Amino acid sequence: MRYKIVLSYDGSDFCGWQSQPSGNSVQDAVERAAKNLFGQKVTVVGSGRTDAGVHALGQVAHFDSAKALPISNVVGGLNAYLPKTVRVLSACEASASFDARKSAKRKTYMYLMYTGDVYPVLDGRAVNVGDSFDVDAVNAAAQAIVGEHDFSTFMASNGGAKTFVRTVYSARAEVNGRFIAFYITANGFLYNMVRIIVAQLMRVGKGENVDMRELIEKRDRSYAKDIAPASGLYLHDVVYGD
Amino acid sequence: MRYKIVLSYDGSDFCGWQSQPSGNSVQDAVERAAKNLFGQKVTVVGSGRTDAGVHALGQVAHFDSAKALPISNVVGGLNAYLPKTVRVLSACEASASFDARKSAKRKTYMYLMYTGDVYPVLDGRAVNVGDSFDVDAVNAAAQAIVGEHDFSTFMASNGGAKTFVRTVYSARAEVNGRFIAFYITANGFLYNMVRIIVAQLMRVGKGENVDMRELIEKRDRSYAKDIAPASGLYLHDVVYGD
Repeated sequence: MRYKIVLSYDGSDFCGWQSQPSGNSVQDAVERAAKNLFGQKVTVVGSGRTDAGVHALGQVAHFDSAKALPISNVVGGLNAYLPKTVRVLSACEASASFDARKSAKRKTYMYLMYTGDVYPVLDGRAVNVGDSFDVDAVNAAAQAIVGEHDFSTFMASNGGAKTFVRTVYSARAEVNGRFIAFYITANGFLYNMVRIIVAQLMRVGKGENVDMRELIEKRDRSYAKDIAPASGLYLHDVVYGD
Repeated sequence: MRYKIVLSYDGSDFCGWQSQPSGNSVQDAVERAAKNLFGQKVTVVGSGRTDAGVHALGQVAHFDSAKALPISNVVGGLNAYLPKTVRVLSACEASASFDARKSAKRKTYMYLMYTGDVYPVLDGRAVNVGDSFDVDAVNAAAQAIVGEHDFSTFMASNGGAKTFVRTVYSARAEVNGRFIAFYITANGFLYNMVRIIVAQLMRVGKGENVDMRELIEKRDRSYAKDIAPASGLYLHDVVYGD
């Protein structure tokens, strides 16, 4: 039986999603919980990796189990074995053809910034951008990345992707009091793509003149050197076919 | 020379504001930083205590120093010695009669709740109140506590206050997406008063019939047994005479 689960986690103390020999990844934590619940080794496949320090509001994963537990027992059962920093929000039975990674149609990431004074309670969760930040300029610049483009400029070198073309469906910053949440939705993302894009948009917000269209055309990472901190990044949700 | 400083801190890993033999209080941290900066022992007086796990966005404190440093050096200097979980937001020279505790005219606390799924990234910072929460009912009930009242019902027994009468200037919950921020402003608060009031209002929000006016009239803590978790509470700001 194949299960599809939706997960939320605080990535601060994890080495990322992907299983590591240290065992300190989110995937390792979920696999340990699943082994305890189902009484057998379970391999959990996520929709994609998140880096160390990156959070998830709605990560999606699947796993198979020979033992079938009622769905109503899966959420509570996994949460009983998981650390408090990881919560299963929902579980459902998936078809055998469902694959959390390959079936994903679009993903949305959120990048959380805030203006004004530094608040320690937001450390590791949102990035301070100082007193004056031009959100309108950010939104104008962000329109250049919407559409189908080769995003090589915005990819960390160790990505291992076969093609650098992705389609960004939307990219917009929303203001909420002192918070600025930047949402970006695409059919897929290259390694570190969101954080490198956000770093350029932060420069725009702080008044720098950055031509995003020109950066895309360069197809060269050296033109977009900065990378925004992992701590502001949240995997918001993953959308599947139906 | 007397300095007035405004502080923000993440209370999660502190035993509260008040100095303790363990040295693990916010006051201890600020006094250590001030001693390093001014080269002499400094006593820091806060506007009031915050409990373990309670955060501050705008705590106010004062201290005296025989050595006078330019104001512009005080913020950066203290922050250089403080842990990242405590930040000095501003500093100014205060008159000799200014007292962060005694001169305070009104304080505002914020209590942060959120509805829907549990998000681990909010643990220790906001309290989940589940799927259905009636904010209108909370705001209607909260009106009963506005005004001058004897708040004995809403005071933890070890408070040591001489009088139990306080004036609440405003108490209202504001909705922002999934977040509900409850703000309460008063000329002062009894020990645990905000958390005990919020616990009753949470019952109201979840559909329970709680008569706040009747609770006040009881002047008896046993009628208001619950206390809301410290982790949702923020000292928002302190207002002084002029």
